[in-house]
Amino acid sequence: MSSDDRSGLSCPLPISDYPHILLAHGGGGRLMHNLIEKIFIAAFGEENLESGHDGAVINPGSGRLAFTTDSYVVNPLFFPGGDIGTLAVYGTVNDLAMCGARPKYLSVGFILEEGLPTESLWRIALSMRDAADEAGVKIVTGDTKVVEKGKGHGVYINTAGIGVIDHDLNIGPESVIPGDVIILSGDIGRHGIAIMAEREGLSFETEIKSDCAQVANSVMKLIDGGIEVHCLRDLTRGGLATTMVEISRSSEARIEIKESLIQVREEVRGACEILGFDPLYVANEGRFAAFVREKDAEKALEIMRVKAADHEPCIIGKVTAAAGKMVILKSMIGSERILDMLSGEQLPRIC
Amino acid sequence: MSSDDRSGLSCPLPISDYPHILLAHGGGGRLMHNLIEKIFIAAFGEENLESGHDGAVINPGSGRLAFTTDSYVVNPLFFPGGDIGTLAVYGTVNDLAMCGARPKYLSVGFILEEGLPTESLWRIALSMRDAADEAGVKIVTGDTKVVEKGKGHGVYINTAGIGVIDHDLNIGPESVIPGDVIILSGDIGRHGIAIMAEREGLSFETEIKSDCAQVANSVMKLIDGGIEVHCLRDLTRGGLATTMVEISRSSEARIEIKESLIQVREEVRGACEILGFDPLYVANEGRFAAFVREKDAEKALEIMRVKAADHEPCIIGKVTAAAGKMVILKSMIGSERILDMLSGEQLPRIC
Repeated sequence: MSSDDRSGLSCPLPISDYPHILLAHGGGGRLMHNLIEKIFIAAFGEENLESGHDGAVINPGSGRLAFTTDSYVVNPLFFPGGDIGTLAVYGTVNDLAMCGARPKYLSVGFILEEGLPTESLWRIALSMRDAADEAGVKIVTGDTKVVEKGKGHGVYINTAGIGVIDHDLNIGPESVIPGDVIILSGDIGRHGIAIMAEREGLSFETEIKSDCAQVANSVMKLIDGGIEVHCLRDLTRGGLATTMVEISRSSEARIEIKESLIQVREEVRGACEILGFDPLYVANEGRFAAFVREKDAEKALEIMRVKAADHEPCIIGKVTAAAGKMVILKSMIGSERILDMLSGEQLPRIC
Repeated sequence: MSSDDRSGLSCPLPISDYPHILLAHGGGGRLMHNLIEKIFIAAFGEENLESGHDGAVINPGSGRLAFTTDSYVVNPLFFPGGDIGTLAVYGTVNDLAMCGARPKYLSVGFILEEGLPTESLWRIALSMRDAADEAGVKIVTGDTKVVEKGKGHGVYINTAGIGVIDHDLNIGPESVIPGDVIILSGDIGRHGIAIMAEREGLSFETEIKSDCAQVANSVMKLIDGGIEVHCLRDLTRGGLATTMVEISRSSEARIEIKESLIQVREEVRGACEILGFDPLYVANEGRFAAFVREKDAEKALEIMRVKAADHEPCIIGKVTAAAGKMVILKSMIGSERILDMLSGEQLPRIC
């Protein structure tokens, strides 16, 4: 199938014949083969998918690989700035990048709810194609299941990813040391608030779009640029605060960050006030924190700046040698507050 | 954690505190960390899981890899002969084996429904541990999401797997040639009927247990034994008939199989008659078909025989050079029937 055929926006599975997903689309028979061919192969390209076989054969070369998985259950399926398909690709791509790996291959598992509009599935598949193209990964193998109406919620997606680690850095909490500088890749809180607003039918003066994006290119530029990266973490469930606490615990490091340096857009701040959320705990889908060696911090910041992007990376704090393994937030007026993990759930089904 | 600690059967997450899974167990905060530590790390072992990080770093060596994924939505979660956890490990292990790969690493993604008994999750995690141990794979990375009551069905599991291909065979439908002999690894129809009986509360004189099992060891012995394996396929959704049709279509081969050579247990045959199912289309979870070079057939059969197993491999047919790319079933009385794929759904949510 040529790329021209793939770029068409009309669904190759005749919507008039099958306006909705049926249980039989997951039955392993003719209808399932038809669905795979007309939706998934049409969107992802048969040159990638090992269709008609139980798995893909890949050849990533020798050396270390990163392997990761995430399921996506976001509600609603479509939101300002993306949809569950975008999220399912970028989320797993970003997890690979956080291991310092160059994302290469994705698997995708769909759990469809009987009655899902076929057109929605097609839109999601196209989003996944576009996101995979942008991130430079191939969707090479997949699976489809269908559950009865009322046993799912439209569609749940799992992606697993394989990435190649072609450097000698050991990126993880265990490499964090006093003196490390913490760079935040942009403003926080957009994804969570965009989902919440869409779900609850809230509207603000300025539409809040999810920050959903791949961050692998930024990470690869840091590594290729010779930056001594000690730890990387994307700021998804639990937000910036929970991430910092996790790293502080795993690395037994004391982290000090300054509230005044953390960017939160005016409209996100306003929405958080109305909804009673703390932006430090709101999920992001295109933001990460990089712990880099002090001497590399300015160069890293320069590399992370993306031309014409709608967000700016910023140094927000550092790892100190002071006693007490915890995360300290210095507030705008100079007081100090110890950050803890969220105890339970702030926003369910954010990703 | 020592293996003694792991072998305990009581759930390390105090059931009295959390008898059921809460939405907050998926929120990214303290409760989720607790769940991961007390259930998943306790069952799978912290030496494997890259806990507290976004992915696992693996080093499978150079050469070709197989990569595959499956989601499991079986209803009921527990059935005679296994549960959703057993299935989630063996199913993906078997898909890797069907690529001729030695299964090495698994990822696991849980979609939990709010209200799932914590004890059930613990039992499932233990089943996964035991199945992984038996198949020689490591569960190295995972993810947990929780959806609201009524948006799932207890638990859905996705596993993705990576296996190592350390031989030069090209195993797939494209390698099938006239003369190839088809070996079936045992009797068929047990898994589908076991699920159906459990779901519908049917009872038979002899309890029908699922055939759910890993077949990777058998496959590796074939390859290590120098058998020229042309194609492998497990007989899951759609059963033996759909599998044969798929291979016939992909390989443009004419397949002839003999009904009298296909083993179906008496009780399975009886249940199929009552329920109106054709055993040729019923799903199996521990059976596969091997297409091997004619001269290797007897040796392959010998290798596939497992001591003290409750099933016997058997040659059921061959690929012929006759005209007409289709699957022919020769019946007991000598008549011929063309097999086709199932059109829709025989048994939903069988795996």
